Amino acid sequence: MKANRICNFNPGPAALPLVVLEEIQENFLDFNGSGMSITEISHRSKHFDDVINDAVARTKRLLDLGDNFHVLFLQGGASMQFAMIPMNFLAENSTADYVDTGTWSSKAIREAEIQGKSIKVVASSADKNYSYIPQNIKFNADAVFVHLTSNNTIKGTGWAKFPDTQGVPIICDMSSDIMSKPIDAQKFGLFYAGAQKNVGPAGVCLVVIRRDMLGRVPDSVPTMLRYDTYAAKNSLYNTPPCFAIYTLDLVLKWLEDTVGGLEQMAALNRKKAALLYDFMDAGTFYRATAEPDSRSLMNVTFRLPDENLEQQFIQQALQNGLGGLKGHRSVGGCRASLYNAVSVEAVESLVDFMKTFERKSG
Amino acid sequence: MKANRICNFNPGPAALPLVVLEEIQENFLDFNGSGMSITEISHRSKHFDDVINDAVARTKRLLDLGDNFHVLFLQGGASMQFAMIPMNFLAENSTADYVDTGTWSSKAIREAEIQGKSIKVVASSADKNYSYIPQNIKFNADAVFVHLTSNNTIKGTGWAKFPDTQGVPIICDMSSDIMSKPIDAQKFGLFYAGAQKNVGPAGVCLVVIRRDMLGRVPDSVPTMLRYDTYAAKNSLYNTPPCFAIYTLDLVLKWLEDTVGGLEQMAALNRKKAALLYDFMDAGTFYRATAEPDSRSLMNVTFRLPDENLEQQFIQQALQNGLGGLKGHRSVGGCRASLYNAVSVEAVESLVDFMKTFERKSG
Repeated sequence: MKANRICNFNPGPAALPLVVLEEIQENFLDFNGSGMSITEISHRSKHFDDVINDAVARTKRLLDLGDNFHVLFLQGGASMQFAMIPMNFLAENSTADYVDTGTWSSKAIREAEIQGKSIKVVASSADKNYSYIPQNIKFNADAVFVHLTSNNTIKGTGWAKFPDTQGVPIICDMSSDIMSKPIDAQKFGLFYAGAQKNVGPAGVCLVVIRRDMLGRVPDSVPTMLRYDTYAAKNSLYNTPPCFAIYTLDLVLKWLEDTVGGLEQMAALNRKKAALLYDFMDAGTFYRATAEPDSRSLMNVTFRLPDENLEQQFIQQALQNGLGGLKGHRSVGGCRASLYNAVSVEAVESLVDFMKTFERKSG
Repeated sequence: MKANRICNFNPGPAALPLVVLEEIQENFLDFNGSGMSITEISHRSKHFDDVINDAVARTKRLLDLGDNFHVLFLQGGASMQFAMIPMNFLAENSTADYVDTGTWSSKAIREAEIQGKSIKVVASSADKNYSYIPQNIKFNADAVFVHLTSNNTIKGTGWAKFPDTQGVPIICDMSSDIMSKPIDAQKFGLFYAGAQKNVGPAGVCLVVIRRDMLGRVPDSVPTMLRYDTYAAKNSLYNTPPCFAIYTLDLVLKWLEDTVGGLEQMAALNRKKAALLYDFMDAGTFYRATAEPDSRSLMNVTFRLPDENLEQQFIQQALQNGLGGLKGHRSVGGCRASLYNAVSVEAVESLVDFMKTFERKSG
């Protein structure tokens, strides 16, 4: 029986490739001939070692990571990283630079402050409701790291190009655009991503850390909050979120074997975003909220002429099989999240619906 | 097609009820008519609210919790709780009592020490390789809490009855026997359980906390490491591990609707453990390692006459469809974990195999 599926524009948890879901479903009662579900196998078994090692190897290939990087799987989402980063890297008498580009950046800053750490907010786009990405930032040479948010899920902005930090390692929250395009990993001391947008289900956070960052962790940091714990044990110090890692591995397999890698993924993502932005820019009914040079390719935030129309739009879209188009509750409006697993055809269906809705309502 | 399934005696991740796995499989591409997988739905949706609220309500009913308890879902497993407990409850000038009954207790103690907290180890069974549960413990009246491990997965021991702590709240790691029997919740300030043994898959930790414990958390504790964060937001401060919570909810539904509650579950668990212990006690070939009055009903640890026979036993058992019987790598030997989802029939099959193996080898 064919399942009745919608086009899913959710901001996260979000769409997963149908072939991934079908593989999970097919093997759910007997994983690889083990006679057990993936949810029942030991994390110390050969079966699970194969899964986690494959996920690490695929991450390294896809992101073209050198041998000086560890690939780790943590729990607690990006929000736990906001706390762990200052805890691990900001010993007394050291300081870091943060750039504030909206909700998630602000939360990362707040978690450093709660711990009484010394940080400097070197740039912010709060003056224009976070509708742009700051440029020409002056970073501090004595900063231990610079913290950035590569893509701002709520405000619909993203860094088209990462800034030159004069050799200070960047630590970057890539939750909403990881694996959406190639990156130059060597700029980063650490980057992290809650998996539930581009690479898997909720419940696992992908962390990539440069080896030299591991030596900086104070002894007073608890075992589960230290990056070196995960690096030393291939993320198996304690029981990891096995099902989430397994699903993430299948998504990476799809990215490599079906899509063909991150260059191909990026081309598809550019095409999807262009379909939507170009359509909106050609008219006046739909208005993209981010400044053109700061637009996210992942989360397209937009407004209609009034809130009443926005509500009708979201409701009627769902009736037409297009889900997840409501803007974040903190900003309102509409948002279409175009993560990797959202197809070009789904975006074409959305644009078609937007044309029809405008004709009926405009 | 009927899946080829084994009898799964894994110590965790462990067996789940087949009806739970089948329900997940059947609905995996379209959860409750949403047109999305449970792994793709928003944690802010009505769909997921229904799941998490049902899991909370079932936990409260099954454990007979009063209104003064919060039911929370965290990440990081019990190991993260080892760090969070002293962080949340041991402000300066306060102290706590810990009882050391083996590996996991010892780790909990270590995490308090790493943070420089003041604790006292008031009893330990290290003198006899943790083969028993200490009795007649003298607790300190000024302790903020007493930390216990209700069941020791690795050493095969468990508390038959919790000690009288003279009103000091017990904080208890119940990872390997939660929901295996009724408990008197009022003795506890907090109890917690990595779900992957008795109530779900890896990736979610069930935490039950008494309301008055929430007011004690210092301001300097990061948001994601504070119990009050989860209590205030029904565990939805950030994206929770949706799939793991969903699976846990289905396991609780099975416990209530199919098994009939914790009294019935406890009767089955007593029966399963008795089948195995009584058989071993009647002979000399298999030797249970825990002292009789301290035996775990969940993890039956035992030895054979020599290590060579133990290896053959484990291998041949697997060939006969009985998996997960290897002892923990730190202690060796054999272990049969008889969690809730392990059927009486599975234990009967195990005992039958043990008889045959003894006849051939003894």
